[in-house]
Amino acid sequence: MSADIVLLAVVSFLSACQQAHFAKQVGNYRMKHKVAPPAVTGHPEFERAFRAQQNCVEFSAIYLVDLWVAGWFFNQELAAVFGLLYIYGRHLYFKGYVESAKGRLYGFSLCKLSLICLLVMSSTGMTNILLSKYCGINLLKKVLHLIYG
Amino acid sequence: MSADIVLLAVVSFLSACQQAHFAKQVGNYRMKHKVAPPAVTGHPEFERAFRAQQNCVEFSAIYLVDLWVAGWFFNQELAAVFGLLYIYGRHLYFKGYVESAKGRLYGFSLCKLSLICLLVMSSTGMTNILLSKYCGINLLKKVLHLIYG
Amino acid sequence: MSADIVLLAVVSFLSACQQAHFAKQVGNYRMKHKVAPPAVTGHPEFERAFRAQQNCVEFSAIYLVDLWVAGWFFNQELAAVFGLLYIYGRHLYFKGYVESAKGRLYGFSLCKLSLICLLVMSSTGMTNILLSKYCGINLLKKVLHLIYG
Repeated sequence: MSADIVLLAVVSFLSACQQAHFAKQVGNYRMKHKVAPPAVTGHPEFERAFRAQQNCVEFSAIYLVDLWVAGWFFNQELAAVFGLLYIYGRHLYFKGYVESAKGRLYGFSLCKLSLICLLVMSSTGMTNILLSKYCGINLLKKVLHLIYG
Repeated sequence: MSADIVLLAVVSFLSACQQAHFAKQVGNYRMKHKVAPPAVTGHPEFERAFRAQQNCVEFSAIYLVDLWVAGWFFNQELAAVFGLLYIYGRHLYFKGYVESAKGRLYGFSLCKLSLICLLVMSSTGMTNILLSKYCGINLLKKVLHLIYG
Repeated sequence: MSADIVLLAVVSFLSACQQAHFAKQVGNYRMKHKVAPPAVTGHPEFERAFRAQQNCVEFSAIYLVDLWVAGWFFNQELAAVFGLLYIYGRHLYFKGYVESAKGRLYGFSLCKLSLICLLVMSSTGMTNILLSKYCGINLLKKVLHLIYG
């Protein structure tokens, strides 16, 4: 089974490393602008970096659930691709947000896009399993049969 | 195995969608009361909505771990029921908190109740597996034997 | 399979209980210093307790991903040991941070150390699986062969 989830594990792991990196960056901006803990307000650049990290934290459970459900019930490789896109989006988001509040928008759109794709994959995959478990219907097979005859 | 976890996946997925919805709501209140990012203080209604969302984020890891451990080691269907109760509790919590600080209390009690039920199921299930793995004792069998003779 | 992940489940569950305990503590300091919700600023002791809890939340996804990837792809028992070390570190961190901002440092170092160990285990384990899945190379076997001949 390990081989069936290794790509999801790699992507989750990269995302965890990115989160740790953001936490470190916020610490750096804290020192740069001399914001003594536990304060989280002060220089605007620090506040933007902190808010950017917080937003990543707020979405991390959403992202991980979406990624794993899509990868497990639909397709591991495809889920991993959109998982990587999300990480790239978060990279742009954080970098952009630190520069200006407006700078966060492009990266955030990429994140939203990849979450929506994972959401569609998740819903399709779960519906298929639910139908086959509780109604004995294999939807995927039927759809493929309709297409290929 | 997919059928053994599909209900847990569905409930986790619904919870993730709810979290995304709360994030969207906070964004709406931000615009309504013209609170420019990265600020998180301003109009009391925005502050309550933001704090409500933050509390959900703080509990999301607790909830997901409890849900999956209870569902995996005790009973999937029962865990899913309490998982749904939690989501309903969070719905009341957010709605109530946005209206007034006191309004959060009823929903929060529901969330606490469902977390405690999941906690009891988790502990029972894990204890059973630990005893059977490390001591060769199948507690569940013994209890059933005591009851049904 | 349940026996292969039960220690990871136990450690995750303990960490979830600790997080719930921290949330309860913050509520207690809120009442002690009469900080009315949704405010998160006020008496310095409350602010430190709140910030300590927030930091735990920020790292909870990182911790859980690291723990499970290390336990699944490398070694469950070893991952559980470092998972427990992390929980102990968080205990010291929270207790220390409530007393003074400087008091958080020792506990945080312990947490960082255990996360780095889990990170090394995760990377090794995943690399091994990836090499064997996509290149047909079993690295672990080769290393053991090099050592024991």
